[in-house]
Amino acid sequence: MPAISHKGAKMPSSPVRKLVPFAEAAKKRGIHIYPLNIGQPDIKTPNQAIQAVKDTDMEILAYSHSAGNESYRTKLVAHYNKIEMGLTIDDVIVSTGGSEALLFTMGSICDYGDEVIIPEPFYANYNGFATASGVTVKPISTKIENNFALPSISDFEKLITDNTKAILICNPGNPTGYLYTQDEMNQLAALVKKHDLFLVADEVYREFAYDGREHLSVMNIPGLEQHAIMIDSVSKRYSMCGARIGCMVSKNKEVMATAMKFAQARLSPPTFAQIAAEAALDTPQAYFNEVIGEYIERRDILIAGLKNIPGVEVANPGGAFYCVAQLPVEDTDAFAQWMLESFQLDNETIMVAPAAGFYSTPGVGKNQIRIAYVLEKESLIKAVQILAEALKVYNA
Amino acid sequence: MPAISHKGAKMPSSPVRKLVPFAEAAKKRGIHIYPLNIGQPDIKTPNQAIQAVKDTDMEILAYSHSAGNESYRTKLVAHYNKIEMGLTIDDVIVSTGGSEALLFTMGSICDYGDEVIIPEPFYANYNGFATASGVTVKPISTKIENNFALPSISDFEKLITDNTKAILICNPGNPTGYLYTQDEMNQLAALVKKHDLFLVADEVYREFAYDGREHLSVMNIPGLEQHAIMIDSVSKRYSMCGARIGCMVSKNKEVMATAMKFAQARLSPPTFAQIAAEAALDTPQAYFNEVIGEYIERRDILIAGLKNIPGVEVANPGGAFYCVAQLPVEDTDAFAQWMLESFQLDNETIMVAPAAGFYSTPGVGKNQIRIAYVLEKESLIKAVQILAEALKVYNA
Ligand SMILES: Cc1ncc(COP(=O)(O)O)c(C=O)c1O
Ligand SMILES: Cc1ncc(COP(=O)(O)O)c(C=O)c1O
Repeated sequence: MPAISHKGAKMPSSPVRKLVPFAEAAKKRGIHIYPLNIGQPDIKTPNQAIQAVKDTDMEILAYSHSAGNESYRTKLVAHYNKIEMGLTIDDVIVSTGGSEALLFTMGSICDYGDEVIIPEPFYANYNGFATASGVTVKPISTKIENNFALPSISDFEKLITDNTKAILICNPGNPTGYLYTQDEMNQLAALVKKHDLFLVADEVYREFAYDGREHLSVMNIPGLEQHAIMIDSVSKRYSMCGARIGCMVSKNKEVMATAMKFAQARLSPPTFAQIAAEAALDTPQAYFNEVIGEYIERRDILIAGLKNIPGVEVANPGGAFYCVAQLPVEDTDAFAQWMLESFQLDNETIMVAPAAGFYSTPGVGKNQIRIAYVLEKESLIKAVQILAEALKVYNA
Repeated sequence: MPAISHKGAKMPSSPVRKLVPFAEAAKKRGIHIYPLNIGQPDIKTPNQAIQAVKDTDMEILAYSHSAGNESYRTKLVAHYNKIEMGLTIDDVIVSTGGSEALLFTMGSICDYGDEVIIPEPFYANYNGFATASGVTVKPISTKIENNFALPSISDFEKLITDNTKAILICNPGNPTGYLYTQDEMNQLAALVKKHDLFLVADEVYREFAYDGREHLSVMNIPGLEQHAIMIDSVSKRYSMCGARIGCMVSKNKEVMATAMKFAQARLSPPTFAQIAAEAALDTPQAYFNEVIGEYIERRDILIAGLKNIPGVEVANPGGAFYCVAQLPVEDTDAFAQWMLESFQLDNETIMVAPAAGFYSTPGVGKNQIRIAYVLEKESLIKAVQILAEALKVYNA
């Protein structure tokens, strides 16, 4: 049997999926499970996005432009320029989800062995994209006690080597929900300028900023034009994860010309989904107000509930729809599995994501979990009760 | 300005796109252009594929399973098993086009610096996927005089090193149209078994085999279960390139488990398009008979026409919808550009793909072009006339 090289072998497994078999077994035993482990919102996709696809009269489902349909890019740029990004359509490549935009970005700015510094805990699939691209992730720790705020710039500087190509942040953060402040963004900007690095900002949750605070895009920082790369996606904004439409945005012409080669190699992003994404851009603000109002209520209920559980610590998320909680257990991998295998409250249990998979430093985050508040309030209340009861039983 | 590492910088440009600016300029001058440069068929997508998407009643466009919807994989496996592939749904990962299946495959079986041997000329984007994956392509020459048949096994063996992980073939071939014989497939099978390599067969044109000959899939070779990886796609089969649905197929459990990690990292293939692809599987055989009949007529007209042009040599394609022709010019890059910039016949000209981009060995194929017969017969007749006249003028 031919041998697999270690690159394929060292691809990390997805931390949110490894519990799936246990969940399936639990379902077979008649247990109802609240899925708090993945970022698949239960919010309805704007109707006009789906309707636009239904209304199409195309007869040949053809490749689109490799950078995405011009009509979509034009509208998308207008959308961004409403908040003064000053983009042209050449600054945007439409990708197959934010996922592919991350792959294009790593491929375009790094060679094998180059390093990208990422505050941890971070979106676990950054590991996968880095491995696929031969890029080394250099994690920098953030702490639940500080709400996962930006580490000090001197800590970043300790990690910068000749191979460092970029700093990658997720703003607002998955899994932390942390929303960077203007001051933190300015510090990062100064840092990447000083060391001539790229600042890649994964802003797929950019619309989800709470408590009256504004999200600050990397594209809005003056003087950062050659350094800034924004990753975006329609997945969460319009609850259309299955579309697989995202984009990579930068004013750096060399970066975009290189990324276009990756885009051309894979021919085009999906055609139906671009039609949906274009139509989604006309979604009225009322939709977002409602959705954001809903997420805020969910967050408040969830965080308050978690804080009420003895021994549980939780960071307060300023955006996105995740939170990281620290539990009074040693190993949330084992605990999360136990909740699926051996626990139930009124025939129900919960599925959470053990947080160790969001850390790149071995051993860190073992007592933390990520909860996605993508279920309705009643379910979240029930889920918190289940967690509280489970912890009691587990620790007894 | 931050420096781009040389991996991004060394991504090859797409050979079929570099003439696009000249074509656009020609169009602006009122010249009609026959696009023979890309594999975007003019054939209609089966209506039921598009209709299935229109009929959907989904309210949330959600992520699908990372390996693709189970319902689609089930039907797809049944489709393959009609020709005795003996597959289960775990042997299939649905990908975003055959393109992504190629990326998953290279990522899963190779590490940085590993080598894949590919008969040239080959589908140019293999270069892009190889560069993105850090894989080194080792080309092995095939000759227009032999219709681009398989090189001798001893020539392959000269290229095999400790770093060789796979042989990648395209069957039937793009750009050659070459359809491998049973004997050639057996030779390849013996070779990869002897040297413990993978045999990756890109079969995205598998349905397009002509002259009563049968396509032989790598999945149908007994004893090759651990070595064989098939790449497939709905793009050409159902003329639905814009769907972006393909798949990676292998019975090698380790390969598929590794590929699943790549699949999970990017979450899922597009949801709308999977609905279309699933419905397309019910396309009646009559559709294919008609389409294949059409391609055969086009091929016959095109090849006969090309053979009639003094100084032109052409390989006879046994499948797919491309042919490679050798022209009495030194550099088809310059000639193809000239046809767009400075030539017209009755206000029309043609756009072809210079073939050098399909060779990995520098300098080879410079007097060849690839023609995609994706236009109707009248257009092909006209295109051949234009080529004949252009060659006369160019060489005068
Ligand atoms: C932080 C972050 N970035 C990127 C993605 C990729 O999403 P998609 O490829 O659906 O756009 C996700 C999805 O959960 C995410 O949470
Ligand atoms: C030989 C070959 N392989 C793979 C592909 C990729 O096609 P897709 O990603 O649309 O399935 C193509 C497209 O032209 C091709 O010609």
